Amino acid sequence: MSRAEVTAEPRRSPKWLARRQAIIDTSASIFAQRGYHATGITELCAANDLGKGALYHYIGSKEELLAAIHDRVMDEVMAGAERVAQAGGSPSQQLAMLGDELLDVIHCYPDHVWVFLHEFPALTGERAERFRGRRRDYERRVESVLKAGVDSGEFRQLEPRLTALAWLGMHNYTYLWLKAGGRFSARDVAKPFAEIFMRGILNTAGGSP
Amino acid sequence: MSRAEVTAEPRRSPKWLARRQAIIDTSASIFAQRGYHATGITELCAANDLGKGALYHYIGSKEELLAAIHDRVMDEVMAGAERVAQAGGSPSQQLAMLGDELLDVIHCYPDHVWVFLHEFPALTGERAERFRGRRRDYERRVESVLKAGVDSGEFRQLEPRLTALAWLGMHNYTYLWLKAGGRFSARDVAKPFAEIFMRGILNTAGGSP
Repeated sequence: MSRAEVTAEPRRSPKWLARRQAIIDTSASIFAQRGYHATGITELCAANDLGKGALYHYIGSKEELLAAIHDRVMDEVMAGAERVAQAGGSPSQQLAMLGDELLDVIHCYPDHVWVFLHEFPALTGERAERFRGRRRDYERRVESVLKAGVDSGEFRQLEPRLTALAWLGMHNYTYLWLKAGGRFSARDVAKPFAEIFMRGILNTAGGSP
Repeated sequence: MSRAEVTAEPRRSPKWLARRQAIIDTSASIFAQRGYHATGITELCAANDLGKGALYHYIGSKEELLAAIHDRVMDEVMAGAERVAQAGGSPSQQLAMLGDELLDVIHCYPDHVWVFLHEFPALTGERAERFRGRRRDYERRVESVLKAGVDSGEFRQLEPRLTALAWLGMHNYTYLWLKAGGRFSARDVAKPFAEIFMRGILNTAGGSP
């Protein structure tokens, strides 16, 4: 065996990976309902219909499971951001697409997002750092779209960091009320939100009203 | 229990009430750090330097303590909304003042607000209902300012509920990063947020640009 083979992660079968993903998803629901700290390994085993040994085989530790839930959300969020970057367009078009993508994730993964937003302080060490780094990467995407709009004159002079935080708050906070089968769909929300925000930041000095 | 026994609260001394308030504030910090479910009565006793019997004398139960933290936040938020209503002014002035007041509460009570936003699902029965009712009352204040602005023509045609949710999200979500001694003060944030939101909803069709 070469050195590379020794240090690499064990190669897992698609079946193993699918089972692991199912455990992550089921556990996200349990954590969302009962809270991370209040949920014991016994409950996780029962919910996933697994013994303790088998559960650890798939997830390593309870904190590893929490990190996997955070990664699941960030994977989806960053995939959306990547689609937006690939699509191109003006900063205002980019920002509207980012809003569509973000609301889709919140709408599709309510339990994961609940855990993501509530339980991140339970992540420690390298896992906490990784989470903060990924979150920061996404925030920078939003900030750089805002900066590009200011530079091109499409947006008025604004502070990109604070404006990104306003945008993130408006969208992220929907996790409290944007539910599958609820009064509003993700699209119902994305359009008026984009309209408020875009009118709020567009440069109207020299352009269209 | 007779109806009178249920409704009559014992009259408490100012000293008793001040001690109770201090317990609520200290416990809010503990819950914010460790989570409501993960915090035991033993830890609450230690943090408040009280025996179990004395703690219960002041707070009744752990859930009662959680409800008191929620009430503490809502008392401040509603007092701010009341000041705004008393001050009068146009809908846009009202909305800007509501933003100032809300950000002040978030800035001054970071632990209480953290607990308020994260642990409300732990409230049960009458306490959960009371909390939802108070939160709804505040949301209605925001909605009615928006409606008033639409009716007067100051704001463009918009859906008051969704627009209120956008405004609430933008402001409430600051609890994650608006900290005493942090990069931004409540006033640093209130002004640009109000500017984004107001431009976002003002009726520019027949009025000023």
